[in-house]
Amino acid sequence: MGENEDSEIIEHHVNEEMEKKRTRTGDLHTFLESVALSDRDGRSSTQSSHRLLAYSDALISIIATVMILPVSHIKIQPDQELQESLQQLLTTKIAVYLMTFLIVTVAWAAHIRLFQVIERIDDFLALLNLACMMLITFLPYTFSLMATFPENTLGILLFCACAIVIGLIQAVIVLYGFSRPYLLSNEIQISENRTYYKRHILKVILRVPLFCFFAGIFSFIFFPLSYALLALVIFLPYISQSLKWCRIQALGQLEEPPESMLYYTYHPKEPLSKERIEAFSDGVYAIVATLLILDICEDNVPEPREVQEKFHGSLIEALQNFGPEYLAYFGSFVTVGLLWFVHHSLFLHVTKATRFMGLLNTFSLAFVGGLPLAYQLTHEFAEKSRNELEAIQISCVIIFFAGIFQLAIWVVALFNERETLHPYVRYGGKEHAFMFAKLSLYPCVALCTFFITCILSQFSAPIFHLMEIGVPFAFLALRILVRITLALLRWAFCPAKPSHNALEEDDTRLPFNDVPS
Amino acid sequence: MGENEDSEIIEHHVNEEMEKKRTRTGDLHTFLESVALSDRDGRSSTQSSHRLLAYSDALISIIATVMILPVSHIKIQPDQELQESLQQLLTTKIAVYLMTFLIVTVAWAAHIRLFQVIERIDDFLALLNLACMMLITFLPYTFSLMATFPENTLGILLFCACAIVIGLIQAVIVLYGFSRPYLLSNEIQISENRTYYKRHILKVILRVPLFCFFAGIFSFIFFPLSYALLALVIFLPYISQSLKWCRIQALGQLEEPPESMLYYTYHPKEPLSKERIEAFSDGVYAIVATLLILDICEDNVPEPREVQEKFHGSLIEALQNFGPEYLAYFGSFVTVGLLWFVHHSLFLHVTKATRFMGLLNTFSLAFVGGLPLAYQLTHEFAEKSRNELEAIQISCVIIFFAGIFQLAIWVVALFNERETLHPYVRYGGKEHAFMFAKLSLYPCVALCTFFITCILSQFSAPIFHLMEIGVPFAFLALRILVRITLALLRWAFCPAKPSHNALEEDDTRLPFNDVPS
Repeated sequence: MGENEDSEIIEHHVNEEMEKKRTRTGDLHTFLESVALSDRDGRSSTQSSHRLLAYSDALISIIATVMILPVSHIKIQPDQELQESLQQLLTTKIAVYLMTFLIVTVAWAAHIRLFQVIERIDDFLALLNLACMMLITFLPYTFSLMATFPENTLGILLFCACAIVIGLIQAVIVLYGFSRPYLLSNEIQISENRTYYKRHILKVILRVPLFCFFAGIFSFIFFPLSYALLALVIFLPYISQSLKWCRIQALGQLEEPPESMLYYTYHPKEPLSKERIEAFSDGVYAIVATLLILDICEDNVPEPREVQEKFHGSLIEALQNFGPEYLAYFGSFVTVGLLWFVHHSLFLHVTKATRFMGLLNTFSLAFVGGLPLAYQLTHEFAEKSRNELEAIQISCVIIFFAGIFQLAIWVVALFNERETLHPYVRYGGKEHAFMFAKLSLYPCVALCTFFITCILSQFSAPIFHLMEIGVPFAFLALRILVRITLALLRWAFCPAKPSHNALEEDDTRLPFNDVPS
Repeated sequence: MGENEDSEIIEHHVNEEMEKKRTRTGDLHTFLESVALSDRDGRSSTQSSHRLLAYSDALISIIATVMILPVSHIKIQPDQELQESLQQLLTTKIAVYLMTFLIVTVAWAAHIRLFQVIERIDDFLALLNLACMMLITFLPYTFSLMATFPENTLGILLFCACAIVIGLIQAVIVLYGFSRPYLLSNEIQISENRTYYKRHILKVILRVPLFCFFAGIFSFIFFPLSYALLALVIFLPYISQSLKWCRIQALGQLEEPPESMLYYTYHPKEPLSKERIEAFSDGVYAIVATLLILDICEDNVPEPREVQEKFHGSLIEALQNFGPEYLAYFGSFVTVGLLWFVHHSLFLHVTKATRFMGLLNTFSLAFVGGLPLAYQLTHEFAEKSRNELEAIQISCVIIFFAGIFQLAIWVVALFNERETLHPYVRYGGKEHAFMFAKLSLYPCVALCTFFITCILSQFSAPIFHLMEIGVPFAFLALRILVRITLALLRWAFCPAKPSHNALEEDDTRLPFNDVPS
């Protein structure tokens, strides 16, 4: 691994050297700049943006999941039925969490788009990006203010101010990048329509601050209009895409722009950096997996005095009270870890991620974020109460949706398997059945548990624990199980070809859609 | 970027194909295995370990900083002097935080070593690693139990049990890896002394569970001995290294082992994956930067009812109470962000990281972890009180140490600049002065602020805020400042060479240590 990095860095510097030779036209205006940034220095300070993006992804993934904390810290009395008011509070907070997650991931997608155009950075861009990050991390707070005081203009104004400044910083980054073409991605760098690209990108980026500006102004006059405008900002790409689609359906194919855009098209097949989707998902999974241990470390270390007084100095007795919390932690860690494992396997076989896949991934992650809570709830209620059953069923539903959206990513990828999937896992490929089994294991198990607990509601807790314990072993044995199932299926349905070796058959069978084109 | 990934993945699969051709010897014993893992399948399920390690780094970095939360949530009354008992509690918790950070980073370093040997993974190893992660995330809790109840055997036993299981899982990973040589790193794969390597690595890994086992047993008999044993586990590599050094000094050079070990030597120059140090640092910086916003999002959204009653419906007035919290958040985010920026610049120029550099990086990160707290404290006390001054000075001290350890990494790298640094930044290289300025900016500023607040203690808060606001601009203008300073220095000390262009001089001057060898 050490060697890989070395060669990467050397390559990076070699690239810089080559760039130096290729583009020699500077655009230095002022005296100070000419002192500070001679043409050559500008290039020697150019850096690969890889780590900046990794750091941004880490920050954004933490921020995306932060609004789950207020939900998790609503205290519920173990024996009381969920009251009306409490249930309402819970619903509001969960809605805030989901909306924040959506908003932050929209900001994140904009960040990906931006840095797919700007591929190399220098110190100035790195610092600008940090400023942008600071404002993005503030978005959830302004949004939760807005949600708590929907009729107060202050929340809307703060939110709009953040969004405007973020948009303006991004515009400055684009202008700066286009004024120093060696920072741009190679496709745009060699393109002749660079000005067209610049204008298009700026138009897309500045749309957001513009809408937010008007939303801010309308908040003084008629605030529902502000909300409509803000909602429009998020759904505008989808609306314009569907409008364009309708127009094409009505009028036939329109003339293409001078050069078809690579980025900022908002087309469902627009490429999104797979590396960054992975980094963001890793961040979310890591935060979510450790969410419960954070609470345990903070709250569940008993006071020495208390142990002495209440439990006569017996630490074991004192800790036994926390038993359910430990169980919840291990359960949620295992589930989140295994969902990560499935995600990891899936993206190992994906060669190119599209915007639509990114969207499905976001939905999956939003459900994953709620998982630790659901697990915590399962242990907070009295045994065999109606609440306990509900909590267990909610857990099953969350696991089901988190898993089913992962499966959806794969189905979408299969639709364009030539572009998005590695030959190994394409339909009919060797690993296809195994991948399918991996992806459908959790949804199936969750669904089964859900229905079994409906029937045998008396034994819901033991069934749930059995599921928790069984799933990791199912994953370990999955390859064997799939082999056996395939062999059985083959034996049951194709008994005519007994002489064929299963392995040879795998080799000779061509992937389904792989017709030579 | 998309293309890079594609080619990477394709390359990875091509590598697998080549491996398949190279090593065809299977070691399949049982019937089940022969059903499940035919020789070829074993290889096609082999994966690059990159993302597994990124996820592990994210988990470990969260866990390393988790014990700062109990410190941060100790409530201090704004106007009261820090009481004796509170101060003691604070000191204990800070000590626990630092010790946990140390223990977790030791586990992390062991994890790096392990996966420098095992470079490729399959599903079984991925699942084993997740199990290992789960236990590592539990370590801080067991340690804090141990620290709160030092005379109770339960804490020690839990901690030892975790450490033993982690060690055993690592041993299983090594055994599994060596039984499937295509998973091993290339150096070991082609080595003839594979058995020697295996034995050496197992010996190093199993040392930890063995010591912990004895520590657990001694906890029943004489518990101080357990602590001595546990401390020995952490410092054993250093002790054995220094013993070896003494022996070499006394007896002269000893005979080398059959092949000099590449990994698990615990030599200060032992290579540690630079990529993973970066990923871990990114995780820590990201968590620390968002630590305060987590609290703000959770606690600082006022209740609508409260606003109506206390502030007569004025949200602005209600939020003004939280002013200091926002200030603390922005201040700490900017400082952590800029320290990350310096770290990023530094590691951009580092081509190979060593164990000693990793250790210094850990120290730097441990101080960074305390930063948000220090910033929070600065705003919690009455203005111009002795406590406020103390809090500001503590902040300065923390910034100073975080910065000075970064500087130390660079100094250590300079000592072996041929191996560890890119030619650009070696002593006398073009970027050398600039890098030095970047690294020394924060320590200098922190030191200056510290002494100025000592003298002008009345104005400590304004001085501190001025520093916070000024530093980002100093970073922006740093390149210009360095240029001007260098020009002034040159003009002052070498007025004899006025005809030389500064840029040409840079080119002709060879790096200082770059004597042709």
